[in-house]
Amino acid sequence: MEAAAGFISRAGRGIENPILEQGGSARELERQGGKLIMINIGDPGIYFRMPRNIAWAFKKAVDEGHTNYLREQGLEELREAVSDRYKGLYGIEFSGDDVVITQGVSEALSFMNQAMIDPGDAAVIFRPFFTEYLTYLKLSGGVAILPPLDEKRGWDISIGELDDALRSHAGKRPKYMLITNPNNPTGTVLSEKAIREAIEIAKDNDMFVVSDEVYDELLYNGAAFTSVGKLAKGIPHLLLNGASKNYMSTGLRIGFAIFPEQDTKTQALKRTFIGMAGARLSANTPSQYAMLEGLRNTAKHQEFIREKAAQIASQSVHAARLVNETGFLTTVQPNSAFYLFARIHLDKLSLRDDREFVELLLREQKVQLTRGSGFGMPGFIRIVTLPSEAVLTEAIRRIKRFCEDHQR
Amino acid sequence: MEAAAGFISRAGRGIENPILEQGGSARELERQGGKLIMINIGDPGIYFRMPRNIAWAFKKAVDEGHTNYLREQGLEELREAVSDRYKGLYGIEFSGDDVVITQGVSEALSFMNQAMIDPGDAAVIFRPFFTEYLTYLKLSGGVAILPPLDEKRGWDISIGELDDALRSHAGKRPKYMLITNPNNPTGTVLSEKAIREAIEIAKDNDMFVVSDEVYDELLYNGAAFTSVGKLAKGIPHLLLNGASKNYMSTGLRIGFAIFPEQDTKTQALKRTFIGMAGARLSANTPSQYAMLEGLRNTAKHQEFIREKAAQIASQSVHAARLVNETGFLTTVQPNSAFYLFARIHLDKLSLRDDREFVELLLREQKVQLTRGSGFGMPGFIRIVTLPSEAVLTEAIRRIKRFCEDHQR
Repeated sequence: MEAAAGFISRAGRGIENPILEQGGSARELERQGGKLIMINIGDPGIYFRMPRNIAWAFKKAVDEGHTNYLREQGLEELREAVSDRYKGLYGIEFSGDDVVITQGVSEALSFMNQAMIDPGDAAVIFRPFFTEYLTYLKLSGGVAILPPLDEKRGWDISIGELDDALRSHAGKRPKYMLITNPNNPTGTVLSEKAIREAIEIAKDNDMFVVSDEVYDELLYNGAAFTSVGKLAKGIPHLLLNGASKNYMSTGLRIGFAIFPEQDTKTQALKRTFIGMAGARLSANTPSQYAMLEGLRNTAKHQEFIREKAAQIASQSVHAARLVNETGFLTTVQPNSAFYLFARIHLDKLSLRDDREFVELLLREQKVQLTRGSGFGMPGFIRIVTLPSEAVLTEAIRRIKRFCEDHQR
Repeated sequence: MEAAAGFISRAGRGIENPILEQGGSARELERQGGKLIMINIGDPGIYFRMPRNIAWAFKKAVDEGHTNYLREQGLEELREAVSDRYKGLYGIEFSGDDVVITQGVSEALSFMNQAMIDPGDAAVIFRPFFTEYLTYLKLSGGVAILPPLDEKRGWDISIGELDDALRSHAGKRPKYMLITNPNNPTGTVLSEKAIREAIEIAKDNDMFVVSDEVYDELLYNGAAFTSVGKLAKGIPHLLLNGASKNYMSTGLRIGFAIFPEQDTKTQALKRTFIGMAGARLSANTPSQYAMLEGLRNTAKHQEFIREKAAQIASQSVHAARLVNETGFLTTVQPNSAFYLFARIHLDKLSLRDDREFVELLLREQKVQLTRGSGFGMPGFIRIVTLPSEAVLTEAIRRIKRFCEDHQR
């Protein structure tokens, strides 16, 4: 590496991917014949089949020769179907012209940082956060302001913490505030009250609001989800959603970037997204036709999501109970997405931190999960609750045994 | 826009897309009922069907449930098939581990600039160039050094011009030199001698070499193509290729980024690519399985490419002859890809420049093509030779009439 010093850009150095970082060790362990339990990747495509009508539409698109570049902004009918979805679910009105189809939500995260962040610019990201938020912010040379969510109140936004974080970065006006609802990694939704107050603060500080709502139909335990689009009327904002979670079509790589407001900022950002989309020519074409069917066929989707959300609910509640019974870990009750974010009671263990926890856990018990520090919250672990109850039971049994082995 | 001044990042401002810039006017003309001829977009997916075996493999992947995220670096078997392709075609040896599958070559262009370019860094890009090279360089805050290719010698690299360009930017050591072979927009290949000399200069100046060879099987008129991978042994370099052109599968969005050398720079760049690939999780999954079939089935591919290259050859030669007979335009004889890059003899016309040429041509004759200034070469136009001879004949007839109407 020394000979290459200065060769890789500042932005490109030290990209971390805590979710995948143990992939090499895990593959090595599997080669040695261990029975590995992976609860680190939130990919419903591994555990559930993509809905059959989406698969059918995918193949039909190929048969009909829809394999060329589409318009950079995305298939017009799909953009209109995204508009219909928001109107149908939330009564939020915007036109298909105000949607850009991206290669997964991750491409939208990349575009939004390249479009808003000059080196040194700041952005507000609540922690714990989805790891890639920080990756893309840093790739554009941005600096994160990271107010913690409030574990005691079910990981809701704490306005006091938000105020404090902004005050300690006074003089630096953040370009955007990024809200994730439902949250990955906590598996919880934000309260309407907290969202209202947070976006008022964004408005007062001239911050653009971004809301990643990619899990918005995966709700259970009576979770009350409110879209930022419903509350941010008149405030410049961008909504992010896509095919991967609600439609369990991760491998299709389709995201929706929605610019519902007509103010100059929102529309300038939309135009910049379209320019960036033009540079990569087109998102995957058969995938766009497939998602058109996925969104249009609301009856099939309702049936699908009801069934899957019930299954995830039952698995998550089961896993949360077992985690809280270990005596070494505690988790807030989840009510959305498919994650548990559990506090490690390090005072009871002879382990240094969450990093050591996940490294030794993989080596000793062959369970792969993600360290909380990877989400900006040291001292925690994230557990993916997509596997069956039997697998989750075995995983948490191993975690408990691991804790007992390392009891202080 | 004024209220949003300073909102969009410096990098995000002024993204140009000369190939698509007239899309709005063109759609408006079509609504008015005009019979528009579009020879601006190099998308073989519009004119040729994707090979049937690739379509079949695509559908099979969906049937078999390959719709989840794949490993960030890409499907292992596909990476090995890319290695087999280079060994089979050119005798170049590297392993599947040295390949990263990207969402089209454009994603590789994005990764490579983010990975190598800090704001203010320079890079050598020969002109005329594929427009997006400059877009991605600028998005990372980079500065282009643009030596012209030599029209008189069939658009080969001119070592004199390269030396001059480097001398006039002395003190600024460019991070990379980007070679395109076969070239878009010129439709010509570079000579082995020129490539050898250029990469020696890159080596002497400690520049990383990138070679975009995405049209390397679309050859005709006896074109002699030499891969940079064949000549750059021991020189840090990256080869770019993909599904879009040789396999005419544009809508699949699959690129190959190949890191054949084991030196520290090449390998550091590969690791950074994998990190960036991890941030966007996965390229399209069914597309990767489809391309695995495309690359493995070399018999079908040889048959396909022979037939398509012959058709493109005949169309391109025909169009070049008609262009040279207009009396207002001249083009170098093309021998690869599917473009003509024609000089406009502005001295014979009452038109200001290539921009006015393409704007008025669209309005008056309903022919949409791309201005040379969009490729860094004012005074030229690019014609896509994918349409049938009948369509190309009609397009060039209209162009000739347009020139006569604006004769000085």
